[in-house]
Amino acid sequence: MFKKAARWLYASPPRTLLLGFSFIILTGAVLLMLPIASVSREPTSFVDALFTATSATCVTGLVLFDTGSYFSTFGHWVILLLIQIGGIGFMTMATLFALMLRRRISLKERLILQESLNQGSIEGLVRLVRKVIFYALALELAGAVLYTIRFAIDMPLGKAIYHGVFHAISIFNNAGFDLTGTGSSFIGYAEDFYLNAVSMALIVLGGFGFIVLADLFDFRKKRKFSLHTKVVLSVSAALIVVGALVIFIFEFTNSRTIGDEHFAHKALSAFFQSVTTRSGGVATVDVAELRQATQFFMIILMFIGASPGSTGGGIKTTTFAVLVGAVLAMMRGKEDVVLFRLRLAQERVYKAITVTLFCIGIVLAGTMVLATTEDASFLKILFEATSAFGTVGLSMGLTGHLSLAGKLTIIVLMFIGRLGPLTLTYALGPKQGRALYRYAEGKIIIG
Amino acid sequence: MFKKAARWLYASPPRTLLLGFSFIILTGAVLLMLPIASVSREPTSFVDALFTATSATCVTGLVLFDTGSYFSTFGHWVILLLIQIGGIGFMTMATLFALMLRRRISLKERLILQESLNQGSIEGLVRLVRKVIFYALALELAGAVLYTIRFAIDMPLGKAIYHGVFHAISIFNNAGFDLTGTGSSFIGYAEDFYLNAVSMALIVLGGFGFIVLADLFDFRKKRKFSLHTKVVLSVSAALIVVGALVIFIFEFTNSRTIGDEHFAHKALSAFFQSVTTRSGGVATVDVAELRQATQFFMIILMFIGASPGSTGGGIKTTTFAVLVGAVLAMMRGKEDVVLFRLRLAQERVYKAITVTLFCIGIVLAGTMVLATTEDASFLKILFEATSAFGTVGLSMGLTGHLSLAGKLTIIVLMFIGRLGPLTLTYALGPKQGRALYRYAEGKIIIG
Ligand SMILES: [K+]
Ligand SMILES: [K+]
Repeated sequence: MFKKAARWLYASPPRTLLLGFSFIILTGAVLLMLPIASVSREPTSFVDALFTATSATCVTGLVLFDTGSYFSTFGHWVILLLIQIGGIGFMTMATLFALMLRRRISLKERLILQESLNQGSIEGLVRLVRKVIFYALALELAGAVLYTIRFAIDMPLGKAIYHGVFHAISIFNNAGFDLTGTGSSFIGYAEDFYLNAVSMALIVLGGFGFIVLADLFDFRKKRKFSLHTKVVLSVSAALIVVGALVIFIFEFTNSRTIGDEHFAHKALSAFFQSVTTRSGGVATVDVAELRQATQFFMIILMFIGASPGSTGGGIKTTTFAVLVGAVLAMMRGKEDVVLFRLRLAQERVYKAITVTLFCIGIVLAGTMVLATTEDASFLKILFEATSAFGTVGLSMGLTGHLSLAGKLTIIVLMFIGRLGPLTLTYALGPKQGRALYRYAEGKIIIG
Repeated sequence: MFKKAARWLYASPPRTLLLGFSFIILTGAVLLMLPIASVSREPTSFVDALFTATSATCVTGLVLFDTGSYFSTFGHWVILLLIQIGGIGFMTMATLFALMLRRRISLKERLILQESLNQGSIEGLVRLVRKVIFYALALELAGAVLYTIRFAIDMPLGKAIYHGVFHAISIFNNAGFDLTGTGSSFIGYAEDFYLNAVSMALIVLGGFGFIVLADLFDFRKKRKFSLHTKVVLSVSAALIVVGALVIFIFEFTNSRTIGDEHFAHKALSAFFQSVTTRSGGVATVDVAELRQATQFFMIILMFIGASPGSTGGGIKTTTFAVLVGAVLAMMRGKEDVVLFRLRLAQERVYKAITVTLFCIGIVLAGTMVLATTEDASFLKILFEATSAFGTVGLSMGLTGHLSLAGKLTIIVLMFIGRLGPLTLTYALGPKQGRALYRYAEGKIIIG
């Protein structure tokens, strides 16, 4: 079965990805519509079920209902399964895509690929898929144990395990679903250093992507990182620190969020909110009460998002690094974009910029549509659209008041946000043959 | 004197541009501070005078005071002079830049350049500068006559000529300053088809840039347009028509703007508001009363702006055409960006994208700063920042309530918005020599 699936995938990976995700979402939606999926035992409407299934499968975390109190245990398992398939499935596909485009990162992976494809076998791919799943499950298991220890203080062990497993899977996959109560996210645990630390670690690790995780696991053996891993680690660290600093400063005197808290709590909250914009989607403050400047800054952070082939969304940390590198190169009058003393191919830079423009276009289009269908402040709408597109799941409160057209728009944004950039990168990959003729060159003036 | 100036310019054009504009703005600010510059005969504060001088020289049109009732006739002449120097001066410099970068557009201009530079003479440049000034003054004169005819109906001939000249210069240079009364822009003339038509023609012609104007004037002789002209004309037309349609539809039922007017008035207003986002800066409706979706759409139109080397701002119509072309090429899986059956050099596409990213970065940074210094809705702030950067001059009403930090931010945005893209394009031009060494190529994953 594995072999057959891998062959079909190799024929047209984007098709597999799009059809596969659509099928999973629709199946999830039908299951969530069933009366047994809700606590009230009443059927959920198709659009609401579709919204929830998309949010789970695309690991976004925007919710129409409070997950804990609206959905039954059956509903929870459906959601958890969708998150798991969506998260790990995407991670696997993205890793395979990267290999198929011959953008090989390490000798190890090149060997796997050669072994598998050159010899007409797909053993290597199967082994790789197994490895991705193993890494993900190992981290989720660790998270589940650590969460359960904490939850066992507040609730019976059975429930603590249930909550531990649910949150470990949800948070590692950057899905942002929680069982903590009516829309309160992790606000109740804002001062809990242990729970904050476990959650931040899971969000960050989930947001790194398989290639970086593999590099991290292998560091003891190899004593060095690939360029990709260096870029992901440094950009993630820079974004988290800068984000935390900005949030800390902007919110220092905002008594509706962290203004009245003591210094350590302020710092912890600033860090958590910064980390969660890397596609996490759970928050320890009420996002709607943040200052406008903070909210806008978080929109930019959410747009950048996590790293390629991870459980997170956005334009990706590496894309952002290339943009910054391109601007720096330009300002210094250099032709080459250089990261860690390595030059990037012009074609790669061009790809990064095209992906970014595409993403900006989608977010702006989504915002335009929502601005006509929803009756809410512009910032709220922009925040919601970016959160959906970046599969982040934070909300200034618009999700609960969406019109039918608004729900459909958010569903589309979540879907495009999850699959668009990867499919696009694949489409922008090296072509099989070159065009038979080219037009003559013309000139226009830019800027 | 002309020769000496041209030689100094040729040594470092961006330096000339930046120093020249700074000098003009500071001189203007000092003159506007004088008691005789205001009707009240009281001195204006330095920051307010600097704001007004920057707004005039950068042909933006954001105003702290009503130009007509606050400034005296002396003040008006200072503003008018700043607009004229800023508008035509920039147009001239931009045209010269384009030639210096050997991005020649037509044989005629190539001959002028060769004649001048190859023979160590700058006669050709001087002739070119004279031609730019001639075109601008001819169009301004035509506008002044047409305006005066209209104003003579409402006011004594002397005042009508005064208003006619002022508005012709202000509107052709896309400066957006008006003498019509307290902040009301052209709202009083919303139904006046003649005045609307003259104003739209001046805004559009001023926003084309010298190269397109020269091509238009020469069309009877040559019977064909350059690629640059074709792109500018078609993109401008498309943006104006699409903009008008969107505004018309969004505002159709908005009784605070055009909802209660008859059909023809609605259409006229929609067209005028669409045209004015091409950097015009005068409006015939209260921009603050438009629907959020309309305001956001106008932000996007303002960001795109007018054409290169014109009196208008923004990323420019040609840059936008390249972006659209790049996205279309990508979607069709083509390597080349093709406009009107001519292929664009990859380097030109890259330049367009870099300029756009730079501009997005500046607008976002300005918005961030304003979001912390100003107490206003986010959309208002984004609108103001984009309007300042795109040197458009439309406002949802924030300008009058700016804090000191806010005024300084807007001043910086207007200055960067006017000079940044051009200087950047120059900086991105072909290098004299290539780097002596290059780093080895590294690989990371995008998207
Ligand atoms: K999420
Ligand atoms: K203007």
